[in-house]
Amino acid sequence: MSFEKLDALCRRLNALEHATSILHADEATNMAVGGGEARAEAMSVLAGMYHRQATAPEIGDWLAAAENEDLSEDQQTALREFRRVWTGLTCLPPEFVERQTATRMRCEQLWRDLRAKNDWAGFQPALEGVVELAREEAALRADAFGLAPYDALMEQYDPGNRAADITPVFAELKVFLVDFVPKALDTQEKRLAARPKKPLSGNYPVERQRELGLAMMAAVGFDLTHGSLSVSHHPFCGGVPTDVRITTRYRTSEFLSSLMGTLHETGHALYEQGLPREWAHWPLGKARGMAMHESQSLFVEKQIGRNPAFWRWALPVVERHLGEDWSIEDILPHVHHVERGLIRVDADEVTYPLHVILRYELEQDLIAGRLEVRDLPEAWNAKMTEYLGLSTIDDPANGPMQDVHWPSGAIGYFPSYTLGALIAAQQWAVIARDMPDIDAQMEQGHFDALNDWRREHIWSQGSRWSTPELIERATGEPLNAVHFRNHLEARYGG
Amino acid sequence: MSFEKLDALCRRLNALEHATSILHADEATNMAVGGGEARAEAMSVLAGMYHRQATAPEIGDWLAAAENEDLSEDQQTALREFRRVWTGLTCLPPEFVERQTATRMRCEQLWRDLRAKNDWAGFQPALEGVVELAREEAALRADAFGLAPYDALMEQYDPGNRAADITPVFAELKVFLVDFVPKALDTQEKRLAARPKKPLSGNYPVERQRELGLAMMAAVGFDLTHGSLSVSHHPFCGGVPTDVRITTRYRTSEFLSSLMGTLHETGHALYEQGLPREWAHWPLGKARGMAMHESQSLFVEKQIGRNPAFWRWALPVVERHLGEDWSIEDILPHVHHVERGLIRVDADEVTYPLHVILRYELEQDLIAGRLEVRDLPEAWNAKMTEYLGLSTIDDPANGPMQDVHWPSGAIGYFPSYTLGALIAAQQWAVIARDMPDIDAQMEQGHFDALNDWRREHIWSQGSRWSTPELIERATGEPLNAVHFRNHLEARYGG
Repeated sequence: MSFEKLDALCRRLNALEHATSILHADEATNMAVGGGEARAEAMSVLAGMYHRQATAPEIGDWLAAAENEDLSEDQQTALREFRRVWTGLTCLPPEFVERQTATRMRCEQLWRDLRAKNDWAGFQPALEGVVELAREEAALRADAFGLAPYDALMEQYDPGNRAADITPVFAELKVFLVDFVPKALDTQEKRLAARPKKPLSGNYPVERQRELGLAMMAAVGFDLTHGSLSVSHHPFCGGVPTDVRITTRYRTSEFLSSLMGTLHETGHALYEQGLPREWAHWPLGKARGMAMHESQSLFVEKQIGRNPAFWRWALPVVERHLGEDWSIEDILPHVHHVERGLIRVDADEVTYPLHVILRYELEQDLIAGRLEVRDLPEAWNAKMTEYLGLSTIDDPANGPMQDVHWPSGAIGYFPSYTLGALIAAQQWAVIARDMPDIDAQMEQGHFDALNDWRREHIWSQGSRWSTPELIERATGEPLNAVHFRNHLEARYGG
Repeated sequence: MSFEKLDALCRRLNALEHATSILHADEATNMAVGGGEARAEAMSVLAGMYHRQATAPEIGDWLAAAENEDLSEDQQTALREFRRVWTGLTCLPPEFVERQTATRMRCEQLWRDLRAKNDWAGFQPALEGVVELAREEAALRADAFGLAPYDALMEQYDPGNRAADITPVFAELKVFLVDFVPKALDTQEKRLAARPKKPLSGNYPVERQRELGLAMMAAVGFDLTHGSLSVSHHPFCGGVPTDVRITTRYRTSEFLSSLMGTLHETGHALYEQGLPREWAHWPLGKARGMAMHESQSLFVEKQIGRNPAFWRWALPVVERHLGEDWSIEDILPHVHHVERGLIRVDADEVTYPLHVILRYELEQDLIAGRLEVRDLPEAWNAKMTEYLGLSTIDDPANGPMQDVHWPSGAIGYFPSYTLGALIAAQQWAVIARDMPDIDAQMEQGHFDALNDWRREHIWSQGSRWSTPELIERATGEPLNAVHFRNHLEARYGG
């Protein structure tokens, strides 16, 4: 049976994915400093081995034959998702991939150097090369999938996402936020005038913060028999579903940034730990995509982790570990802090979407050829001024040079961040509607019902549905900004 | 060029070795408890991938063609060693390997269960199956390499080692030790009567022991930019030459067992760190074999780490970390303790070789068909009585069931342990002859000259020579027991 040949192939590919995932986590947490060169060589050879096996010429024949075999519904779904992934892997000619990899690597290396020097002029030609190839790539992918070029790029990260569906939602959200951000800042100012912010600083040994993080992870549902927490410079969630590696970093003067980061990564980890085991080696058994993944991390970090009800339970836990007796009025100004800034990764949940929408609009223009790289600093500055009232015209390092995404060729990825925030709010709204006591549960430190809902509706579904289908099946509505808006108004409104 | 095809193949195989080595180390030190099943599946698939690529039918043609190409001397040496490894991988038919793997795994699993129950009768049939297949394997390997059957088994672990060379050395050593062990015990008794042993017990926090271990590792030459120390249940040296992972375990009531274990693994690690980088992906760039590897671990643990001159430097280091002010007379009775016992892994350097020689003699008889498994308990007991004056006739769990080697099919491996001890003493003797101030250097904590000698004569040689050639080139003499005997007499004699 051809299906069985594909099953055996998936086992081989999954073993290579297992190895590279653990090697990645190991590199960030355990590798000796001098081990990098040999590790990079091994990873590059393994990536080549994976690509050769995943695109072997016989696979097309196996797929065609398997599609005519007598299969269960699950097997048919597995095949469908396999074909989608395989098309994505095979639609670019090898010589194109080589050229693109070299161009991206050169641009990313240049970016690391020139961003620090705020040197847009030196960087621009390299980014032009990457964008030129991204346009070619978009055309090739569009052809293979029968999609519009930018949609074909998004398809890599969130299968089923289409600009025609997202643009109206983002447009409405943008109008709302341009108006709402000043209001939220105003509200915050009044609150702080009434009750000045108390600094949450002190001396918190790493080991105590680690114990606090582990206690919180376990409480919100992280299975410590199938994962662990360690330290790395850039926090991440990696590893494999049976052994999810999350990391954080500590500052001994304050605990919130590490704890919030740990909760964020725990959200990613819960998704991985909840994936369907029986299809673990097929694409069907993997997480749906970046937007849905981000919805799970933001669900834990923002919907749970910055919720006053959560903090009514969490403050005594913090006190047990750190010995600090803070009140809910002490903590909320910190976890609900809003601030206009130039940098996306430093943004709070109110201003963040404007950073993403700016990039979403610009990268569509770049791919469509309506915008050229040389005009990017001005276009960026115009939107930054319009959306957030800030200027970057003399500061490209904190404008179009601030993210690694474009230099490394990731175009079509940015929307996932804000889609994740919308989807998380949409999930929360359904849960709050169906479980009116959810705040009371959190105040008691009970997260089972929250997790059961997500396990049933999201995690266990793997890649069974496209992103929009999964959103609608889980929440009963297509993607929309209503619940996220309500969420912001309730938390940050006057 | 066929040589270049083989070079590319070696890069692929080395990437898989890199991955599986790091995954092995990760499994023992970092894996979540629930991650084992998926890890085992991934490792088994990667092992299959390695074997298929390492034995692909075209390799024989590439080898034959490459051997006729215009190559440098190094390239020719690399090819020669590649052919040896490749012959070892291809000389067993795949169906035989499958049958053997299943038989060994069943026997090893049974052994774990039945050893705890001291149930020889239940275990015997499984071991008979393993020995039967080992005889077949020996015949197949003998045929492929043109060697005697037992030599063909040893060839897997120590290329070039032949029973005809080893047996006379072991025979001489056995006669010496049967006489010497009682003398050493007598000497020890007299010393202890004159000065009773002071217990080195206390409360030594793990973190302080770890710092002590790292300080000792660094002092004797471990490059901490290319390796690390962590904790595992069974100490090991793993990883890759650019990132050597060694492990230990701690008891807070005493420090010597962990420290001595760390020095032992450091000896292995120095060999790996000192291998020639330019051939790292070829068999030529790997360590020579088990005996030579053990010679490096025993060199650091026994020749350096139990040397009074070493302790004159080390005691103040121990005091700095653990706060204990011991004298050289306090420490030596502990690091030079001799005791007759049934268990090989617990044996000291005086009695250990008798455990090995017993196994070496018995496993040759098993392979030759002069001894059957059913007669093993009696044969074991007879030798145990003759060599060490101990009986195991009612205690097979501590007799022929004590080691994992035979149940897992590793026959021909045991001699490596004692060959390692002889080679270490032989190396030490040359160094002591050529550097008369070596004790004074150690007393100052200077190990550079010791390491330079081993780097030049052993580590940098990789697999350029057979084991006996490497011994003779490094020390100017063929393998012999003279220096080891002198070493024991100097340290343990009256």
